[in-house]
Amino acid sequence: MLKYSVMRMVDIIEKKRDGGKLSPEEIRFAVMGYAKGDIPDYQMSALCMAIVFRGMDKEETATLTDAMMHSGETIDLSSIHGIKVDKHSTGGVGDKTSLVLGPLVSANGAKLAKMSGRGLGHTGGTLDKMESVPGMRIALSEEEFVKQVNDIGIAIIGQTQDIDPADKKMYALRDVTGTVESIPLIASSIMSKKLAAGSDAILLDVKFGSGAFMKTFEMAKTLATTMVEIGKSLGRDTRAIITDMDQPLGLAVGNSLEVKEAIATLHGQGPKDLVELVEEAGSIMLEQAHIVKTHEEGIAKIKETIDNGEAFKKLVAFFKAQGGDISYLENPEKFEKAKYETKIIAENDGYVSQINSMEIGVSAMRLGAGRATMSDVIDMSAGIILAKKVGDEVKKGDLLATCYTNKTGVDSVYKDVHDAFKLQKEKVKVSPIVHAYIK
Amino acid sequence: MLKYSVMRMVDIIEKKRDGGKLSPEEIRFAVMGYAKGDIPDYQMSALCMAIVFRGMDKEETATLTDAMMHSGETIDLSSIHGIKVDKHSTGGVGDKTSLVLGPLVSANGAKLAKMSGRGLGHTGGTLDKMESVPGMRIALSEEEFVKQVNDIGIAIIGQTQDIDPADKKMYALRDVTGTVESIPLIASSIMSKKLAAGSDAILLDVKFGSGAFMKTFEMAKTLATTMVEIGKSLGRDTRAIITDMDQPLGLAVGNSLEVKEAIATLHGQGPKDLVELVEEAGSIMLEQAHIVKTHEEGIAKIKETIDNGEAFKKLVAFFKAQGGDISYLENPEKFEKAKYETKIIAENDGYVSQINSMEIGVSAMRLGAGRATMSDVIDMSAGIILAKKVGDEVKKGDLLATCYTNKTGVDSVYKDVHDAFKLQKEKVKVSPIVHAYIK
Repeated sequence: MLKYSVMRMVDIIEKKRDGGKLSPEEIRFAVMGYAKGDIPDYQMSALCMAIVFRGMDKEETATLTDAMMHSGETIDLSSIHGIKVDKHSTGGVGDKTSLVLGPLVSANGAKLAKMSGRGLGHTGGTLDKMESVPGMRIALSEEEFVKQVNDIGIAIIGQTQDIDPADKKMYALRDVTGTVESIPLIASSIMSKKLAAGSDAILLDVKFGSGAFMKTFEMAKTLATTMVEIGKSLGRDTRAIITDMDQPLGLAVGNSLEVKEAIATLHGQGPKDLVELVEEAGSIMLEQAHIVKTHEEGIAKIKETIDNGEAFKKLVAFFKAQGGDISYLENPEKFEKAKYETKIIAENDGYVSQINSMEIGVSAMRLGAGRATMSDVIDMSAGIILAKKVGDEVKKGDLLATCYTNKTGVDSVYKDVHDAFKLQKEKVKVSPIVHAYIK
Repeated sequence: MLKYSVMRMVDIIEKKRDGGKLSPEEIRFAVMGYAKGDIPDYQMSALCMAIVFRGMDKEETATLTDAMMHSGETIDLSSIHGIKVDKHSTGGVGDKTSLVLGPLVSANGAKLAKMSGRGLGHTGGTLDKMESVPGMRIALSEEEFVKQVNDIGIAIIGQTQDIDPADKKMYALRDVTGTVESIPLIASSIMSKKLAAGSDAILLDVKFGSGAFMKTFEMAKTLATTMVEIGKSLGRDTRAIITDMDQPLGLAVGNSLEVKEAIATLHGQGPKDLVELVEEAGSIMLEQAHIVKTHEEGIAKIKETIDNGEAFKKLVAFFKAQGGDISYLENPEKFEKAKYETKIIAENDGYVSQINSMEIGVSAMRLGAGRATMSDVIDMSAGIILAKKVGDEVKKGDLLATCYTNKTGVDSVYKDVHDAFKLQKEKVKVSPIVHAYIK
């Protein structure tokens, strides 16, 4: 018989295809080989498709995450004093949480050393929103990054090129090979980056609903549980909340529009759902940082730093440290306004039962606020301000939303924005934004 | 919403992944795009893996076959008078059937215009066996090919480069991506080549057992039924027999050894199982060529052309037409003998219940009769002659087989050959070689 003493990728693919459990050696061989270029794309895509069908157990998923994380540089945050907390959202529309939550938890003494991403398609990215403030730098050296967190408690930067190269290659490959929809692959992709970024504790905000990648609560819960298990098995305090994306978060969608909303929220004038989310998430992060002992205590602390202005001061210090022109934060009227402002008027009566986040996200993108492909340039002033939210009563002729753009010929967007509002005759009961806590 | 007016491979992959039925347009887009190089390997391997899990229905499989067949040249045999019959075996050990069956059916007036393959791993190839006769040409132009079949009724040549390029690429890709084991992919690979080769009627010999790709009768039956359905749906008279590979076919394994056995069989001195197979298969092919009306009539015709020497004359004419030195056929003692001849002696008593074809095939390869990789050079004189077959009684000290090689240091092969013979205490009932007929 032919005997093979060397490990071969085809045998690993066949083992998973046939429902077998991959050994740690096999998983590391596949991931490291792929990251180095020894294993070709066509074998990795076949393995990913086999994983889509066969799944991976907890141990395989944790090993996969660990192998991906160690495919590149891991950030050493040990020279930052105190407990480093990180937060990750699975992506949403109007999600400016990091810009509010970061200052809130660091104003309370937690350390946030965060790597963030850019927007693509219907979702926005924290880095793009930050860059709507002139001068803002999102590329810091590791030394600058560590020093800034030690000095003021918060820094948010772009992921460096050397972090998790296996994930970069696998993510791009999965996107074009129909292998995105797999809990172990999604969970390992998110967690390998978060773990490589070096924080001690991680809070995951897993969203579900029309604008989220996870369409149902059950899928979101499975993903959240998987990620929490990965994080814990690799020695990090990992928790998750499952939140609603059946409407955009807050009222603003679009880069400078969202920064203005973040500022307002830190001034105590935030929209109800965003305020609720940052109180809930902030309290958990303060528990993870061992700053508070109970959820109630955490919520009280978060409210306090909004009320006493400390959180807004932290936002200013954070933007100043990264080169941002803080006069924009102090006087948000300075942000350039889009040339065209279009009011979207209700054509029917009813109560808002849903605002399709995907439609709103794509509409904002088409107005200039986002990218269809990574090479597109963002118009920082473009976007949408919602005037109604889920639960609100609407009368024909009421303002539903206002669209901002510098583009012409985007009239079809306005109809889409109108139609994103689903109305019903009966009153709508609004549920709390956090549907479940997992730890 | 983002709307795509163009067809995208990723959507096709996802449709199959989710259990959908691919449209003819989608299948043609994927196959033609892949053959042309517009669709990369990593997308095709992901689609193949999705097909491994989800399968394809009859219509999809027929469309896939048709698309692959039309990815390159198709042979026009219309200038050959009469019904062209072709035969394909799914690969076995000691399978010299084409060299016996071809002369037999053409001696009876059927036209055999066949493209054949080379051996790899444990299976031999008809082209290699033909080349053990000095001077034999396996590359003819299409004009030479057609003329030879018109003149003498038979030609066997190598597949031209232009036939079924989609299959060549997909086969190589599937081999390294764990996507070989899929009935629709196997069936379309075989049938697209056969259909492109242009014969009117096709007989498939689907083997099962230890030395065959299909391990069980049920798998072989599913594959055979799928291929017959494809052939019929694309307008060809397609039939199949399912035959046993729980031992090598005949007694000889190895290139010139098998040619000598083919000659002996045409002289009426063939081993029982090979004679039975060529009678059964030959009769069906004569029915397909409308030369006989019943199976019994066909078997009688086959026997007759062995007895009267017409079939052997046809073999000589066929080899002569392709440049072969026919003195080797007329005097098989001329074939060069291997330097080393090793007798394999039974160490136990019993009745032979199985002769592991895979072990015998790999052993013959290691003696020099086959290729581990396509670049290996074959030793035409190397191989194995079995002295016992399934059902035979064996006494300790009896000859089981004789090994022929020009290599030294292959002693471990001899133990493998010995151990390939499975003995049992009870008498063994030998079943007919054809287990099922499908049409």
